[in-house]
Amino acid sequence: MAKELKDLTKRADNYSQWYNDLVVKADLAEQSAVRGCMVIKPYGYAIWEKMQRQLDDMFKATGHVNAYFPLLIPKSFLSREAEHVEGFAKECAVVTHYRLKNAADGSGVVVDPSAKLEEELIIRPTSETIIWNTYKNWIQSYRDLPILCNQWANVFRWEMRTRLFLRTAEFLWQEGHTAHATREEAETEARRMLDVYADFAENFMAVPVVKGVKSANERFAGALDTYTIEAMMQDGKALQSGTSHFLGQNFAKAFDVQFINKNNELEYVWATSWGVSTRLMGALIMTHSDDNGLVLPPKLAPIQVVIIPIYKNAEQLQAIDAKANEIADKLRTMGISVKYDNADNKRPGFKFADYELKGVPVRLVMGGRDLENGTVEVMRRDTLEKETMSVENIEQVVKTLLDEIQANIFQKALKYRQEHTITVDSYDEFKEKIEEGGFILAHWDGTTETEERIKEETKATIRCIPFDGDTTPGVCMVTGKPSARRVLFARSY
Amino acid sequence: MAKELKDLTKRADNYSQWYNDLVVKADLAEQSAVRGCMVIKPYGYAIWEKMQRQLDDMFKATGHVNAYFPLLIPKSFLSREAEHVEGFAKECAVVTHYRLKNAADGSGVVVDPSAKLEEELIIRPTSETIIWNTYKNWIQSYRDLPILCNQWANVFRWEMRTRLFLRTAEFLWQEGHTAHATREEAETEARRMLDVYADFAENFMAVPVVKGVKSANERFAGALDTYTIEAMMQDGKALQSGTSHFLGQNFAKAFDVQFINKNNELEYVWATSWGVSTRLMGALIMTHSDDNGLVLPPKLAPIQVVIIPIYKNAEQLQAIDAKANEIADKLRTMGISVKYDNADNKRPGFKFADYELKGVPVRLVMGGRDLENGTVEVMRRDTLEKETMSVENIEQVVKTLLDEIQANIFQKALKYRQEHTITVDSYDEFKEKIEEGGFILAHWDGTTETEERIKEETKATIRCIPFDGDTTPGVCMVTGKPSARRVLFARSY
Repeated sequence: MAKELKDLTKRADNYSQWYNDLVVKADLAEQSAVRGCMVIKPYGYAIWEKMQRQLDDMFKATGHVNAYFPLLIPKSFLSREAEHVEGFAKECAVVTHYRLKNAADGSGVVVDPSAKLEEELIIRPTSETIIWNTYKNWIQSYRDLPILCNQWANVFRWEMRTRLFLRTAEFLWQEGHTAHATREEAETEARRMLDVYADFAENFMAVPVVKGVKSANERFAGALDTYTIEAMMQDGKALQSGTSHFLGQNFAKAFDVQFINKNNELEYVWATSWGVSTRLMGALIMTHSDDNGLVLPPKLAPIQVVIIPIYKNAEQLQAIDAKANEIADKLRTMGISVKYDNADNKRPGFKFADYELKGVPVRLVMGGRDLENGTVEVMRRDTLEKETMSVENIEQVVKTLLDEIQANIFQKALKYRQEHTITVDSYDEFKEKIEEGGFILAHWDGTTETEERIKEETKATIRCIPFDGDTTPGVCMVTGKPSARRVLFARSY
Repeated sequence: MAKELKDLTKRADNYSQWYNDLVVKADLAEQSAVRGCMVIKPYGYAIWEKMQRQLDDMFKATGHVNAYFPLLIPKSFLSREAEHVEGFAKECAVVTHYRLKNAADGSGVVVDPSAKLEEELIIRPTSETIIWNTYKNWIQSYRDLPILCNQWANVFRWEMRTRLFLRTAEFLWQEGHTAHATREEAETEARRMLDVYADFAENFMAVPVVKGVKSANERFAGALDTYTIEAMMQDGKALQSGTSHFLGQNFAKAFDVQFINKNNELEYVWATSWGVSTRLMGALIMTHSDDNGLVLPPKLAPIQVVIIPIYKNAEQLQAIDAKANEIADKLRTMGISVKYDNADNKRPGFKFADYELKGVPVRLVMGGRDLENGTVEVMRRDTLEKETMSVENIEQVVKTLLDEIQANIFQKALKYRQEHTITVDSYDEFKEKIEEGGFILAHWDGTTETEERIKEETKATIRCIPFDGDTTPGVCMVTGKPSARRVLFARSY
């Protein structure tokens, strides 16, 4: 099912088309028959599974447990939190009936009007409401707190313009929902989970991120503060890669979740929620990949090493098989996933292109000459550099190389971001520079009005108010009013 | 949040109520605000996760890969396969709109009538239709086959009478969907996956199962053959615990999925599907548990060993802490999950009852006397037997004991099933014996008519035509017509 590499659009020609092509040609995902919903194909899902496993381990290491809450939410639950309903009611899938029946004309099935629900149910766009309605029964006293639950689930938002992984109507994600006895503890939790996300992005996805807090305008519907990690894609646009929300007591008040605190007083519970989704697949693809296809970080690659034989006859293949399987077994013992591809219905050249397209980090090629000389050709996917090396101790060489690739693609992405992050002081310059892509650090007066004007005039948004970096006060580039510190602007996905 | 043990109904008093009580009191699951949908609580989900992980490993070891297909299915897809639509259209959740809007009277949100879908979508009750519609694009030639995909997902069936885990509107499951070039290969796959399920049930859940094929009447809607594993609960009723379907070319024909075979002829693809769900949680609970609470097989217990200190003062606790943590660390090194519960806000007696309720397989208790004597009290949950033993090499003792418990609860369940499986030759005897519960092996003439008469008159159904056991022909206990072999009858969940 591998598609020919030559069909892949070049990044320089059309970055957006390159991405769309790559997702499909590398067998990651495809559009389904249902508008806006994708099929995640086995190779794409294998990467997502590795991400899930790692994140899940990190959640558990920070004391969280998994649980599962209903897919459907009573319509009225949405209305309980004023901002939440504004944010989510406009793009939801509504279940109104619970039965189909045969059409009178025999043409198929139709909705059975007698099976209308008393109250409509919506497919969860996010689960704060159903979860806080549940927590009400779990929490009486400070002894029941904190609750540190996470859920792996599908969610649904009726998006009009969709793109595979980046914005789909249905997507897979995890959503953490925690309940705390104090404001301070909840705020610490929200920040801690942002740190977990940043750690995962940088050390597993090899995607450098800027950590910060969202402006009021970009907050999650119902949050007091939304923390975010923002990554830069190769076209200079930002991709919001994970968010963590300090929800204050908003949902506790909406669902009347109170507890007896240590002073024997009744108090509303403090909350956080945090999530990352299959959108991370988009970030992974767009940060590292090139005109030859995917470039995957070794830590998340389903196949870390591929071994390909080049042979003239069956006898030679047999000899290569023996040596290659020996290397493969040793690598597997070291916990490295290896594929030895000696299928005889595809030419080596096709295999080379296909595994490049799929982003396999290290390729070993072994031919007749190599057998004689005790060598193997080693290629690294990130730089496409090839080197013929001794098979002696090749396992250690490969292991080191995988670490090197992981570090190198992170450094490359970091360098790219640094080179495409500039400081701007005038709005004219801002309008000029934003056309070139990249991140712009500029002063802003802190008002939603100015933020929306900038967005309207330049399509750039405030990605975040960074936690780190230059904190010198200044004046807003648009209004000249005081600014506490520079904030991060970019066009975004 | 642990509930008092004394509230747990006894099995002998009311088996059904005992089950309902236990699921809630052991913090496994609870009803949600949405009719028929459950909340799977962290402790219940932790068991499900262990089941998932093991099954997933077994699927991968047999060459399967995971993928993800859309939650929503166009209504018309259901109608494509004639039996399938009859089986699933009557109990599905129907999405008709994609937006809510604020009510004119400010009372909340209402469905926006202008956002009506052209074609209604249903929440997947099972995914054959959407998956075969997708496979159409993946399959051209025999070289594209087999496809061996599995999906972990939530599905939805609008059940009227629901019970936690056993029958819920939304449930979690895995569904394998495979495509093959030949009938024989597909049949082999369907049988192989039934073997995987039986292996999992017996060797991990410690639940003995009868493997067999369903009668035509009990087949999956759209299958040519449905294979099943049937387990016996402690009330003698059967629980269908997993099914694997040979679908023939039905879905390939419904979605026009043809391939060029090795003889260069166009042919319809052969299919299987197979699934197990959170229903397995019900089987696990009902097979082993007792009037004190859950009894979990060590291989699936989230906590395999709990250590509880009994102390008079802080100084003594400190000494016990040191020794207990030493034991816990050694056990963890051996891959055993251990909880050392030295929380000082609960009495030992409360802890004992609580961990019994939660089914923790092994409990170690250490008091002041034990410290002096170098001993520890070991209790096994399955028999509730206690023994004071030397702490020397206690890790090996515990490891061996966990294996023993795993084997013992399987043997106990097997013995129970054997003692409650009888052979019956007259319908009068059948009607009498079926009231006592248990499995009955009897002759049947192979017709749906007789099967339905038996069901109506006795509430017993044919659970399966077993693969093993007595294959002597005979005559139907109801009609006297020829019978090829005895089949398995029972009342069931």
